[in-house]
Amino acid sequence: MPGPAGGATSHANSPAASPAPLGWLGEAARLRAEAGLHRVLRPRAPRAERGPTGAPALPAHGSLQPWTDGDLLLDLAGNDYLGLARHPEVVEGGIAALRAFGAGSTGSRLVSGTTTLHGELESALAEHLGFGSALVFSSGYAANLAMLTVLTGPGDLVLSDERNHASLVDACRLSRADVLVTPHSDVDAVDEALATRSWRRAFVLTDSIFSADGDLAPLAALHAVARRHGAVLLVDEAHGLGVVGPGGRGALAAAGLAGEPDVIATVTLSKSLGSQGGAVLGPAALRDHLIDTARTFIFDTGLAPACAGSALAALRLLTRHPDLPERVQRRAREIAAATGAPEPAGAVVSVVLGDPERAVSVAAACRDAGVAVGCFRPPTVPAGTSRLRVAARADLTEADVSRAVGVITDAIGRFPAP
Amino acid sequence: MPGPAGGATSHANSPAASPAPLGWLGEAARLRAEAGLHRVLRPRAPRAERGPTGAPALPAHGSLQPWTDGDLLLDLAGNDYLGLARHPEVVEGGIAALRAFGAGSTGSRLVSGTTTLHGELESALAEHLGFGSALVFSSGYAANLAMLTVLTGPGDLVLSDERNHASLVDACRLSRADVLVTPHSDVDAVDEALATRSWRRAFVLTDSIFSADGDLAPLAALHAVARRHGAVLLVDEAHGLGVVGPGGRGALAAAGLAGEPDVIATVTLSKSLGSQGGAVLGPAALRDHLIDTARTFIFDTGLAPACAGSALAALRLLTRHPDLPERVQRRAREIAAATGAPEPAGAVVSVVLGDPERAVSVAAACRDAGVAVGCFRPPTVPAGTSRLRVAARADLTEADVSRAVGVITDAIGRFPAP
Repeated sequence: MPGPAGGATSHANSPAASPAPLGWLGEAARLRAEAGLHRVLRPRAPRAERGPTGAPALPAHGSLQPWTDGDLLLDLAGNDYLGLARHPEVVEGGIAALRAFGAGSTGSRLVSGTTTLHGELESALAEHLGFGSALVFSSGYAANLAMLTVLTGPGDLVLSDERNHASLVDACRLSRADVLVTPHSDVDAVDEALATRSWRRAFVLTDSIFSADGDLAPLAALHAVARRHGAVLLVDEAHGLGVVGPGGRGALAAAGLAGEPDVIATVTLSKSLGSQGGAVLGPAALRDHLIDTARTFIFDTGLAPACAGSALAALRLLTRHPDLPERVQRRAREIAAATGAPEPAGAVVSVVLGDPERAVSVAAACRDAGVAVGCFRPPTVPAGTSRLRVAARADLTEADVSRAVGVITDAIGRFPAP
Repeated sequence: MPGPAGGATSHANSPAASPAPLGWLGEAARLRAEAGLHRVLRPRAPRAERGPTGAPALPAHGSLQPWTDGDLLLDLAGNDYLGLARHPEVVEGGIAALRAFGAGSTGSRLVSGTTTLHGELESALAEHLGFGSALVFSSGYAANLAMLTVLTGPGDLVLSDERNHASLVDACRLSRADVLVTPHSDVDAVDEALATRSWRRAFVLTDSIFSADGDLAPLAALHAVARRHGAVLLVDEAHGLGVVGPGGRGALAAAGLAGEPDVIATVTLSKSLGSQGGAVLGPAALRDHLIDTARTFIFDTGLAPACAGSALAALRLLTRHPDLPERVQRRAREIAAATGAPEPAGAVVSVVLGDPERAVSVAAACRDAGVAVGCFRPPTVPAGTSRLRVAARADLTEADVSRAVGVITDAIGRFPAP
């Protein structure tokens, strides 16, 4: 297959027909391991697994999770904030969808991948969150990529909080806008940028509750600044939905901003709703615009019916039990108070420990003592702020909280800061 | 909330505190409508919907799909190439996973989002496709973004076929590499670029079977050129898995390239496997590298257990029924021959009609006559090549094919080219 340049002479830069051009991966792995940044996946085991007596090791619903090393762990690592992922109604919602529509949606939402269930879920999300419309994607990541890429283009300005989630950062990279990263929750910096930079359309982009730190963005102040300048406020409610706001309607609803004409939100279906997927919420014209132009909508297979069915069942549970958000907030505050962590705005308690080795050691000690917590290291969090990420759940008992706090404080004490 | 620049003076570019900075969406919608590019979602109805007699309108498995306008359509629009999305074993695989693990995976794969089922699925995918390892993502889109972004950086060169899927295009945009778009399936152009451009690492990126045209990339020739120059061949097998190659092992397996040390593949679980999700396949060192560094893996919720369970059940069915790929290929060839379309390499028959209005009219006429086909317009396909996209399935009967061909040719005849 000789090319026009003459196939026989190899390019000066090419490693001479080596069949191992991926050899550099080994060296990259060694460097990550030296930096304490190698990860190992620890699979959870099925709940139907049998115990020594032949009986199921666990009831169908509860705080303890089986892991494959034989441990039954108190799970404070995941984002199942309301404890709904294993709720019987949520499981049955998925099963009914599987039976009615099959395992996959079979195509793009524009072709065969929209079912009546997707429409029901979108209507329920829009109503619950107080927006004119919602459009569901296969993940929150995809929803965030869609939101930014359909709204922005050359000449536009996006002001992105420095601690925004990776999916928002990637969305900014895919947008063709000028992106300015602003200091964390710094309203004055946003105001100054809007006042002093040139732009065609401008957008203020923030998480409502930040995933790693658990703090709340100053949404009312950000919106006031955005409105004064004619900018649009874009808010990722991944960690707000189901956790804060009246009835779990999110931080925008708590600030009285849901449904405002210059506010757009995204949510995930994979955290408080215990399923998978994401959605963009805003005025109906935005939904039309997304359907016609969003690449992660048009060129992606529609969300699996089972995920839509489970998310809808969870949303209905949340509507029937508006006390669930208060319960998870209370548990989070209890854990934070007892571990010396900053008061959390939602479910996430952030226990900063410093270097990654210490965080890994403390998390491993917690695990050995029967409590699974998140261990966040770079690049998930900035260097020097490796931490435990402890996620409260609405279904934790007082005994669960006492046990968790005891295990965490004991583990921290065994690995003091250098 | 006055900022340092003085909140009282509005920026010259800002539309004077308008609360409707999204007003431009209305004009954008009008322009799309004028260009024939407005889309309407047509939801499918549940199969359990009752007919006039109170009995279910449809059996649980079959070619006809109910749509909400009351139609029962022969579905040639989706990507359920093997007809497995509604197969009882695939549905039951999802149900068992829902019961064992819950509706969602509850977190990042690095934290709580990996189950034993994810591991089983990854082993089965790697074995079936003939690669050293596989890593599962929440979508094929996410898998493609991961593949490119973890392998490339400044100074690297990616040669991307001009007809590559949107997710590969977005992956190139997110990579920090120099990206050169090469003419469609032009091996000489790839050779010349590798010989004449400077690069640190180089990658040749292509779909194996192209989604819109249904043609096969010249994989053996591309690999020969890539190897000669020390570049890596990256292949999206979204439309190859389950459709071509021995036992549906894909186009790389058919070309004898699966598992080569300089070849990486991605697949979706949402087409021939009838579920949702995607995977990257390559040497084990690549899987470790993805786990440690891929943003769409680390910062995304793990694939829902139901989707993993259904995909695994479908893969086992494919292994037990290695004749399924031949069946779908035969149906596709029959449809192409009867409609005058180019001979398809896999399941997709591309009937190019020209301008979007004609494609919409023909597709609507097919639908009115009981056959759902895809209607692809810009930006999915290049301007001037709007078309019907007719997807064959392994479970189509001869009568289904006869009916489909009659309806399609009749509809085309009613809307002749201008």
